[in-house]
Amino acid sequence: LPVEYRSRTDAYVDRYAARAQGMVASEIRALFAVASRPEVVSLAGGMPYVSALPLDIIGDMVGELVARRGADMLQYTSAQGDPMLRERICEVMAIEGIQADADEIVVTVGAQQALDLITRIFVDPGDVVLAEAPSYVGALGTFASYQADVVHVPLDDDGLVPEALRETLERLHRERRRVKFLYTVPTFQNPAGVTLTTARRREILDICATYDVLVIEDNPYGLLGFEGPPMRALRADDADRVIYLGSFSKTIASGLRVGWALAPHAVRAKLVLAAESAILSHSNFCQFAVREYLTTQPWREQIKSFQELYRRRRDAMLESLAALMPEGCTWTRPDGGFFVWLTLPEGLDAKAMAPRAIANRVAYVPGTGFYSDGTGHRHMRLSYCYPEPARIHEGVRRLAAVVEQEIELRDTFGTGRAPSHGGVDTPGPDVS
Amino acid sequence: LPVEYRSRTDAYVDRYAARAQGMVASEIRALFAVASRPEVVSLAGGMPYVSALPLDIIGDMVGELVARRGADMLQYTSAQGDPMLRERICEVMAIEGIQADADEIVVTVGAQQALDLITRIFVDPGDVVLAEAPSYVGALGTFASYQADVVHVPLDDDGLVPEALRETLERLHRERRRVKFLYTVPTFQNPAGVTLTTARRREILDICATYDVLVIEDNPYGLLGFEGPPMRALRADDADRVIYLGSFSKTIASGLRVGWALAPHAVRAKLVLAAESAILSHSNFCQFAVREYLTTQPWREQIKSFQELYRRRRDAMLESLAALMPEGCTWTRPDGGFFVWLTLPEGLDAKAMAPRAIANRVAYVPGTGFYSDGTGHRHMRLSYCYPEPARIHEGVRRLAAVVEQEIELRDTFGTGRAPSHGGVDTPGPDVS
Repeated sequence: LPVEYRSRTDAYVDRYAARAQGMVASEIRALFAVASRPEVVSLAGGMPYVSALPLDIIGDMVGELVARRGADMLQYTSAQGDPMLRERICEVMAIEGIQADADEIVVTVGAQQALDLITRIFVDPGDVVLAEAPSYVGALGTFASYQADVVHVPLDDDGLVPEALRETLERLHRERRRVKFLYTVPTFQNPAGVTLTTARRREILDICATYDVLVIEDNPYGLLGFEGPPMRALRADDADRVIYLGSFSKTIASGLRVGWALAPHAVRAKLVLAAESAILSHSNFCQFAVREYLTTQPWREQIKSFQELYRRRRDAMLESLAALMPEGCTWTRPDGGFFVWLTLPEGLDAKAMAPRAIANRVAYVPGTGFYSDGTGHRHMRLSYCYPEPARIHEGVRRLAAVVEQEIELRDTFGTGRAPSHGGVDTPGPDVS
Repeated sequence: LPVEYRSRTDAYVDRYAARAQGMVASEIRALFAVASRPEVVSLAGGMPYVSALPLDIIGDMVGELVARRGADMLQYTSAQGDPMLRERICEVMAIEGIQADADEIVVTVGAQQALDLITRIFVDPGDVVLAEAPSYVGALGTFASYQADVVHVPLDDDGLVPEALRETLERLHRERRRVKFLYTVPTFQNPAGVTLTTARRREILDICATYDVLVIEDNPYGLLGFEGPPMRALRADDADRVIYLGSFSKTIASGLRVGWALAPHAVRAKLVLAAESAILSHSNFCQFAVREYLTTQPWREQIKSFQELYRRRRDAMLESLAALMPEGCTWTRPDGGFFVWLTLPEGLDAKAMAPRAIANRVAYVPGTGFYSDGTGHRHMRLSYCYPEPARIHEGVRRLAAVVEQEIELRDTFGTGRAPSHGGVDTPGPDVS
C-alpha cells in the first residue's frame, strides 16, 4: 500500500481524522505526470476538447457581461445557485424527458461536488454504496473519503445487469447491511462506454423500489450521443427515488466547473445547507457566464458539433483498434461519450504494463482505478475525447505494439509473472 | 429547536447520515429573506462593495483573456490550483511578512472551502476545535457539520485573551480531550472587529506550542486596514504550526470564489487529495481571471481605494452610533475590515428584538449566530461594508429607536421578558 503520507516524514500524521487515513496518492499519479509530456499520446485523460468552442465569441460575451452586470456577477450569491441559471438547467434536462422545477436544483462545482454533498448528507462510515463494476474513479474516491463500503455490481454491453443488482441487494438485505444508494452512470458510462438499455432502465428502477434504495443518476455525457435522440433519463420516470446529477463540463466547458443536482425538495434543502458549509456559494462569475451562454448562444448547435467531433474520434479509435490490436483483446463500442473499455488477453496486467506503455509513448488508465476491490487488472480505459484522430491512431499503434510484446513475454515465460499489487488506486481526476 | 427538516414531511429523514442531523436551517434565515427588501437598511450582510471595481476594465481584461487563453481557461486544472496564480498569492502574502513557496498553497473555492477541507482532514466527531467567542458563523457551521465539539475562548478589544486560552487548554488537557486546532481571525475579526495585538500574537503562538496545538489563521480582511502598515501574520512567525487561510473575496471580488490555504507540505498534500475528492478542481476560469488581474491591474492601488471606502463607512457607523445609540450600549472600534460588534444593555435580547428591528426597516445579525453554545443574546454584528454612509446613518437611527423602545419595555415590565430560545443559530453565509 502507498505509504507516502503515513511515513515518519509527515509530522502531522497523528493529528489527522480517521477519514483522512484513506486519502493517499496513488503511484499511478507519478505515471500521469510523465504522461503529460508532449511526445506521449495520452489516451488517459477525460478532458473535453474545449478548443472547439468559438473562443472569440465567448470572450466578447463574457467581457460585455462583466462590464454590464459585474456588480452582481462578481458578488456572492446563494448557496443554491443563481435562479435564472436553474431555469435554464430545467430546459436542458427537458431534452432527456425530465420535468423539474428550478427550486429542486442546487448548482454545484461540477457534478463532482454534487457527489460529494450527496455522500456527505447520506453516508455514515460503513454504509454500503452500490456502484457499477467498473465505476467512475472520482466517485469511488469520494465514497472512500466518507468511509463508505462500496459494493460493485457488474455491467455488460447493455449496462448494469439487473439480475446482479437484485442478487446483491437480496444478499445485503439478508446481511442486514444499510444500503444508502445505487450510484450509476447509465448513459455512455465512464469508464466502460456502455449504455443502459431502455428495458433495463425500467427494471433497475423497479428493483430499487422493491428494496427501497435511492438512485444517484450521474449523467455528464447524456447529450453527447452519436446516433438517435438522447436516452430518457432514469429521473424522468421516478422523481422521488432518483437524484440526478448533471454537468456542463462536457457540453460547454469543464473550466467553468458548473454542475448540478436535481433532488426532491427535502433532500435539496439538505444539499444547500451542506453546500453552504462547504463553499458558502459557487462562483457567480461562472454561473452568469453559463446562464448567458445558454440564453444568447446557439448551445444546441454547439452540442451537435461536439457530437460530430467526438463521433469522428470514436470512429478513429474503433477502426484503429480493429486494425491493430492483437488477437485476444476485446473492447466496448460506445454510442456516445468519451471512453472505450478494453480487456486484455488472459495473463496480461494493464497496471503492470503501464510503465512500459509510457516508455513506448502512449498512456491509458489501468482498470484497477475503477474498482474499489483491487480487481480490474486485465482492463484499461482508453479516451478518444482529446487527441485528434491521427494521434488516436498513432496511440493505438503504440499500444498494440506494447500489448504484443506482453503477449510474447507471457507465451515465453508463462502466466506466472508477478501481477501488480492488489491495492486500491485513485488515479486522480480526469485532467491528465 | 428548528425541526423543519426533521419533520414527518421529509420522507428521507431515516436515510441521512448522522452528520446531516445537525444541518438545519435557522429561523434567522426567514428574517434575512425579509431583510433583503430595498426598504430595509441591511447592516447584516458581509458583502464587499464590488461596484467600486472598474468593471469596464475588468470586462475587457477577461474578454481578451478568454479569446486568447480560452483553451486553458475553460479546461480542467489540477486540484492544487494554477501554478502561476499560486506564485502571485505568495507575493500578496509577503505584504504580511509571510515567506512561502507556491507549492505549499492549495487554491480553494473561497477560504470557506479551505476551512471545510481542513476540518475534513483533521476532525473526527467529538474532537475539540477552539474558536474565539464570538467566532465567524461560517466556520462554526463547518465545524458542526463535521461534528466537532467547539470550545469558545473569549476575546476582548485586543483580540483573543491569552490567559483564557491557556486556562482552556490546561483544562482540556486535564480532561484528556483531543484538541485538533485553534481557529482564529486575528485581524479585524469577524464578527467582533477587534485585532490581536503584536504582543499577544507571540504569546498565543507560545501557548499553542506548549500545548502542541495547530493554529488555523483565517485572514480575509488583513489588507483592509484603515491606518498604518498591515499586521504581521501569525504564519510569518511559525510556518510549522500555523495553517494560513487567505481570500480574494474582499480584496478583489467575492464572486470569483478564489481563496487559498497555505500549509506545511504534508498537510498541503492531504488538502489537495481532499479537494480533488470534493470538487476535482477549482474553476480555471476564475483562477485565470484572478491571476491576470494580479499581473496586469493596479491591485495594490485598488486595495488602497477599498481601504478608503470602508474607512469612510466605518467612520459613518461609529459617528452615528456615538450620536444616536441610547446609553448602556457599547461597541467595538475596528481599525479595518467590515464589522462592529455591539453589546446591548442588560436585559435586552438582540435575537428576540430582530423581528421588531426589521419591522422598523433595519437588519443586523443577532450575536447568537456567532457562538456554538447558545449564548450571545446581548450582542449583534453591524456591518458597514455595503451600504453608503448616509444609509448607514439612517440604519443606525432606526436601530437606536428600536433599542430605546426595548429599554422602555424593559423598564416597564422588568427584565423578566422571555429570552429567545437557547438553540444554536446558523444564519447562513454573509450574503444577505
